[in-house]
Amino acid sequence: MSIDRIKHYLVGIEPLKSEAKQQAQERLDALIKPPGSLGKLEEIVVTLAGISGKIYFDPTKRCVIIMSADNGVVAEGVTSAPQSVTYSQTLNFTKGITGINAIAKQFNTDIYVVDVGINAEFTHPQVKNRKIKLATANITQGAAMTLSEAEQAILTGIETALDVIEKGYSIIGVGEMGIGNTTTSAAVLCAICGATVEEVTGLGAGLSSDAYQRKIKVIKTAIQRNQPLSQDPIDVLAKVGGLDIAAMVGVFIGGAYRRVPLVIDGFISIVAALVATRLNPVIKNYLFASHASSERGYSYAAKALGVEACLELNMRLGEGSGCPLMFAIIDAACAIMREMGTFKESGLGEEYLNTIKNSRCFS
Amino acid sequence: MSIDRIKHYLVGIEPLKSEAKQQAQERLDALIKPPGSLGKLEEIVVTLAGISGKIYFDPTKRCVIIMSADNGVVAEGVTSAPQSVTYSQTLNFTKGITGINAIAKQFNTDIYVVDVGINAEFTHPQVKNRKIKLATANITQGAAMTLSEAEQAILTGIETALDVIEKGYSIIGVGEMGIGNTTTSAAVLCAICGATVEEVTGLGAGLSSDAYQRKIKVIKTAIQRNQPLSQDPIDVLAKVGGLDIAAMVGVFIGGAYRRVPLVIDGFISIVAALVATRLNPVIKNYLFASHASSERGYSYAAKALGVEACLELNMRLGEGSGCPLMFAIIDAACAIMREMGTFKESGLGEEYLNTIKNSRCFS
Repeated sequence: MSIDRIKHYLVGIEPLKSEAKQQAQERLDALIKPPGSLGKLEEIVVTLAGISGKIYFDPTKRCVIIMSADNGVVAEGVTSAPQSVTYSQTLNFTKGITGINAIAKQFNTDIYVVDVGINAEFTHPQVKNRKIKLATANITQGAAMTLSEAEQAILTGIETALDVIEKGYSIIGVGEMGIGNTTTSAAVLCAICGATVEEVTGLGAGLSSDAYQRKIKVIKTAIQRNQPLSQDPIDVLAKVGGLDIAAMVGVFIGGAYRRVPLVIDGFISIVAALVATRLNPVIKNYLFASHASSERGYSYAAKALGVEACLELNMRLGEGSGCPLMFAIIDAACAIMREMGTFKESGLGEEYLNTIKNSRCFS
Repeated sequence: MSIDRIKHYLVGIEPLKSEAKQQAQERLDALIKPPGSLGKLEEIVVTLAGISGKIYFDPTKRCVIIMSADNGVVAEGVTSAPQSVTYSQTLNFTKGITGINAIAKQFNTDIYVVDVGINAEFTHPQVKNRKIKLATANITQGAAMTLSEAEQAILTGIETALDVIEKGYSIIGVGEMGIGNTTTSAAVLCAICGATVEEVTGLGAGLSSDAYQRKIKVIKTAIQRNQPLSQDPIDVLAKVGGLDIAAMVGVFIGGAYRRVPLVIDGFISIVAALVATRLNPVIKNYLFASHASSERGYSYAAKALGVEACLELNMRLGEGSGCPLMFAIIDAACAIMREMGTFKESGLGEEYLNTIKNSRCFS
């Protein structure tokens, strides 16, 4: 049974290593800067140490996993792009011409594309075929998928994470491609957190005011019809979620299980991260929020998850496109740890050292 | 006269090239993504085109200019680090062990250090000697410097910008090292914008509550004593500013004059940028705000200047340390323009093309 295997991984997730965190903090405080003055870069260093057990983390081999799947709810007219764009863009990932391709290449990041439910036969050497089924069902008329399919999708995500870690990747970004998935993500967020539909449903400039109202109504109908159980995240995923989201939940589980840092992209990604933490709250320690998506529900989800994004770029592309930018910030964090000198190494006197160690700000 | 030369550069600053901006926007809108979905990355591409006149900007040769100078106001006990740290850290820049060294190296950024007023003889092949004088005077007792010295410092900044551009740098970050310069920056910001001292004066954890109250009192005294003329930015710099800030103002002027994008670091840097725009508002078009410094006055200055930072990292180190991180974001912006395919190139049909071009969001 998939659920037993999922539970195996969930219970195997361990807390961060406090000794390594402390060692990292001690070195950070010895570096020639006012303690804490590098802000989140320092927090990142400490968290990476807690995750990996090493105070010098090496983030150079990294990838973004992109879960591609279709959503039956597009039949309700909640998107401005046709469903076929999931297929087209997934194909475009293999051609190297999409947003994530450009940004990933810039920051030496590989992408790893998985078909978990594109609504077409898809055979390509660069796309992993792990299709659960050809798109989910229309959530206004019933569950998106069966509980068993949701579990299979989660397990697929877990196994994908284990696969890429086996290949030597030390840090993973979590992205998606799936027309209709801001609708399903909003529905999941409402079901899990009790948000109102209006709070978490994005306008999308492509949506006319009419279409936006329709999207809100569709999400309300889906929740009303399916009655997802807020205390049972897998039930929520099966009833109003998507194969992409469920598989992403699995990546967060598998990555945390293998003690690998996990980078959240935008709205769909953060909803998946939130669902994962509802399955095991310890997963939160493994998460890094990259950019604050401009899709409306993002900030609600970030607050619910208790994370703060490092980048404010008003991006809303998806595809995991924020993750390589976060890898660059993580590169900087690792660089300060690796390259900066300590007060002692810099040959500064003891008196000066004591003064400066007590100061928050040079200036 | 320095002032005539400064005016020569100020009047020579031209607006952005609207045709290049439009061409860049057209290509961005043709790329396979919902228009605008890459947010600020797209805005950066358009601005770079307007600055350089080229729709494919090359940011690979970049540097951070660091202006080092001392401030007489440290005699009032407004800092937790001794004045000698300006000297020590400037020396450390040459050893490659500081925060800016680590972050700059990570992002292939050179640093260019200039002594405009360190309070000691400083001779080092890697530090440009353009010392105006050995530190400013104590602003609680009179002007920091003469008007002529302020003008010399500005001109030094302009000439430094022209120098590095001559060496082939196509984009410049603007940083500083100067114990006491959050005090002078807060004073300048109050004098220029009419902010209250409390609004823009940072606590600095190194400062006890007593020292913080003293810092506020010192700034109030300095303004009261010197009566800087809010409509005359050079008068303000001379009376309550610093040689570092004045030289940074010059870098912003010289860079804009030579049509080079300029990256703002933290609090001192954004105050210098604001002063530069008061000398010529067109300079604003050449500015990129990197990170939102956690030094209290930053957000006030950003609002006054009308810029939004791309990075939220709670950094407050100075040294220009936020600039290379912004170079990485600019790299990403240039990469999407260079690497992404268009709807036509991707072989998608006309119908799809029309649908997607009207959509804000794939999902």
